[in-house]
Amino acid sequence: MKKLTPQSKNFSDWYNEIVQLADLAEYSDVKGCMIIKPYGYALWENIQCELDKKIKDLGVDNVYLPLLIPESYFKKEAEHIKGFAPEVAWVTEAGGKKLEERLAIRPTSETIMYKTFAKWVHSYRDLPLKVNQWCNIVRWEMRTRLFLRTTEFLWQEGHTLHQTKKQAEEMVNSALKMYKDFANEFLGIYVLDGLKSQAEKFAGAEYTKSIEAMMKDKKALQMGTSHSLGQNFAKTFEINFLDKDGKDKTPWPTSWGVSTRMIGGIIMAHGDDKGLILPPKIAPVQIIIIPIYKTQEEEKLVKNYIKNLEKNLKNIKYKIDWDDTNTPGWKFNQWEMKGVPIRIEVGPKDVEKKQIILVRRDTGEKQEIKLNPSTSLGQVKNKIKNLLDEIQNNLLKTSEKNFKENIREYSDYEKLKADFKKENFFAVVNWCNSKKCEEQIKYDTKATTRVYAENKKGKCIVCAKETESRVYLAKAY
Amino acid sequence: MKKLTPQSKNFSDWYNEIVQLADLAEYSDVKGCMIIKPYGYALWENIQCELDKKIKDLGVDNVYLPLLIPESYFKKEAEHIKGFAPEVAWVTEAGGKKLEERLAIRPTSETIMYKTFAKWVHSYRDLPLKVNQWCNIVRWEMRTRLFLRTTEFLWQEGHTLHQTKKQAEEMVNSALKMYKDFANEFLGIYVLDGLKSQAEKFAGAEYTKSIEAMMKDKKALQMGTSHSLGQNFAKTFEINFLDKDGKDKTPWPTSWGVSTRMIGGIIMAHGDDKGLILPPKIAPVQIIIIPIYKTQEEEKLVKNYIKNLEKNLKNIKYKIDWDDTNTPGWKFNQWEMKGVPIRIEVGPKDVEKKQIILVRRDTGEKQEIKLNPSTSLGQVKNKIKNLLDEIQNNLLKTSEKNFKENIREYSDYEKLKADFKKENFFAVVNWCNSKKCEEQIKYDTKATTRVYAENKKGKCIVCAKETESRVYLAKAY
Repeated sequence: MKKLTPQSKNFSDWYNEIVQLADLAEYSDVKGCMIIKPYGYALWENIQCELDKKIKDLGVDNVYLPLLIPESYFKKEAEHIKGFAPEVAWVTEAGGKKLEERLAIRPTSETIMYKTFAKWVHSYRDLPLKVNQWCNIVRWEMRTRLFLRTTEFLWQEGHTLHQTKKQAEEMVNSALKMYKDFANEFLGIYVLDGLKSQAEKFAGAEYTKSIEAMMKDKKALQMGTSHSLGQNFAKTFEINFLDKDGKDKTPWPTSWGVSTRMIGGIIMAHGDDKGLILPPKIAPVQIIIIPIYKTQEEEKLVKNYIKNLEKNLKNIKYKIDWDDTNTPGWKFNQWEMKGVPIRIEVGPKDVEKKQIILVRRDTGEKQEIKLNPSTSLGQVKNKIKNLLDEIQNNLLKTSEKNFKENIREYSDYEKLKADFKKENFFAVVNWCNSKKCEEQIKYDTKATTRVYAENKKGKCIVCAKETESRVYLAKAY
Repeated sequence: MKKLTPQSKNFSDWYNEIVQLADLAEYSDVKGCMIIKPYGYALWENIQCELDKKIKDLGVDNVYLPLLIPESYFKKEAEHIKGFAPEVAWVTEAGGKKLEERLAIRPTSETIMYKTFAKWVHSYRDLPLKVNQWCNIVRWEMRTRLFLRTTEFLWQEGHTLHQTKKQAEEMVNSALKMYKDFANEFLGIYVLDGLKSQAEKFAGAEYTKSIEAMMKDKKALQMGTSHSLGQNFAKTFEINFLDKDGKDKTPWPTSWGVSTRMIGGIIMAHGDDKGLILPPKIAPVQIIIIPIYKTQEEEKLVKNYIKNLEKNLKNIKYKIDWDDTNTPGWKFNQWEMKGVPIRIEVGPKDVEKKQIILVRRDTGEKQEIKLNPSTSLGQVKNKIKNLLDEIQNNLLKTSEKNFKENIREYSDYEKLKADFKKENFFAVVNWCNSKKCEEQIKYDTKATTRVYAENKKGKCIVCAKETESRVYLAKAY
């Protein structure tokens, strides 16, 4: 097996190699479009399955709207088209004819959603309207990177309409909290959540909130966004409802989404020089069992032992690697590369000593379970389940520790610039909210504003103007 | 609520109205593209969830391949491009530039699958390769109909490669059997399964097998197909593997799929003049509870009673219609329109008599459960579960009966023509396998060959040539 470039040597190479060596995805011949392979797609399915439950818990229904959006829809909202026009792929011919109007492959679905909502909403009784769709998206990106930024990607996009501004704001926050909880509970990734600057918001939004994670190279990854869209879109698409007070009003829309980019986040938040480290709750394989034997007699012993072991593994996603073309050593490396949370090796010694040795992928630690005559099935099963929980929790704890240790407060701009030249980290600084200072920072440090931090009096790190605003800065993917 | 046109008056109007009145889907502004609404999409999610398990049970892994396919891929397989070219939508501009090569929005993914497989397969150890994807498809159809034939639709497409022709044939049959079982067990739809004629096969396939259902108007609906693709595609895309015997060989591919068209099948196989009738196993709502009360006191009684009732409904998809802007009568009609398998009305009388009245959507029959002090939670729950099973089974039985009663054997062509002019049905006839006779039948009767029937000696119904071949004929969607 090809050896992985160490993270410390070249993080970017490490990432590209791991995506390939762990069999997650590869590029197709179409510029920047990816092929998601079975192991990578299983990860996405697990994310989808768990997140979908949370979305439904918010009272949101799934729907499906068309892939193709007429150009005229896009032109309606000026900011929106300005933001997306450079990235759109256009269908101009179909059914053997040139089309009268170009059709955009959706780069996001706000326009077609609102066009549809205008037909669905008439009275305050139709609100809140909350829908979501799981679908593919195309944005013609110049520089692509598997999972992180691809021409086509998979995502979910939630779209809601509310009676009042306050209710829309609550929705923006509920969706953001859902993403944060999901990142913590299921991905084992600690995140900051908060408001983005006006320069960094979604094209056409009133404001955008996001969750921001720290990768192992201390760079930021925006993992999910939630937008309040003001009333522009709703007015443009003429959505009106008759309110309780008998007046015609415009509803307040929100939209929010996460994508296959999350998989890039999982890779870079947990992985090490041996490969992926997957959180048990979304791992396609939670336990890999590797049989070790030389003689036929040993093989028989080991097979029987594993058969008994399997009784303890109900409702656990496990796999036994029987492939006899590879050595156990090769298999260890391969399954470490794939990030399987627990490895169990079963050899004649284990059979003899009536033991199960569990090896943790995250820490490398070994844990032994003795199978005394008094050990019940339930006990073994519980120990294994507890270990999976422990690994899940440890990943989050480690991620939180890594994040918090690498946030630094700065008030000296020269020092900030010098430090960002040397290394990556998250900085907290006072900022006067001006676009000019924001651009200056970006120009000088290559770091961008991520989300606002808690207010605290101070001076803007660039122009020294008094301000309470503070913001997190980091170089980002 | 708008009244549904009776099936007997105009089946086509009935269909179009029911899709709208049951809130399943509607057209978008883009020609033939549909908007799948929450209730319709919930149906698709349930289909997807259950069918996906069956697909995985066949050892198939899910993947995701790009939406956009270079024109050059399509041109490689002559039959394939001939079949699909008229229906393709082309992307010609993206990222603000004209593309050097047109990109097709996938009308099916064989070409890009094989291009990819050529990189994945090297040795017999890489076979069988079995993957599936759930995705959207675009085919520029001239005449569209919601769910049945739309410009964009959702589907799953399985693609496999095998070492031998025999293994590929087994796969074609396994996939077909899976679809048949799924139609029977989950959709409650009886189907014929078999081989299609060469004229009716998939463009580029060696042969196609399908499942064919009978709708309530006695027309046929092809609900799923499974193709053996010979070796053309594999050779064209230069897929080779080193076999056990040390020789370089070409693998044998298959592909198979079902789509959102299945929802059209469910509507037309079970529905009646009151609306949809949904099979309990895939119904988004299995039980609708309608509270009936006038005074506040009654409301309190009924609410309490329902609260207790809910304890019996764990793991059952139920909904309580508390909406007080509609009358109970309106609600009965509405939920009948939506095809919910069981309705429970709860009024003060039921509270007093300690009873639950279950009304079946399929037969209209009422079933009473008495809540004696000795009635346990488990007993009530079992009765409800049994009733859901009974409804599920009854739908299949009814569908089978309807189908079998409307299959007729014909040997007299004049009689066949006269009968097809009067009505719809499935005919079984001897046919000499010639394209000429097949086209003659289509021209004279508007019926097409559906699948081959069991062999039996006789004379071709058109040219009177001796033949053992027999085929089912029907007018089809």
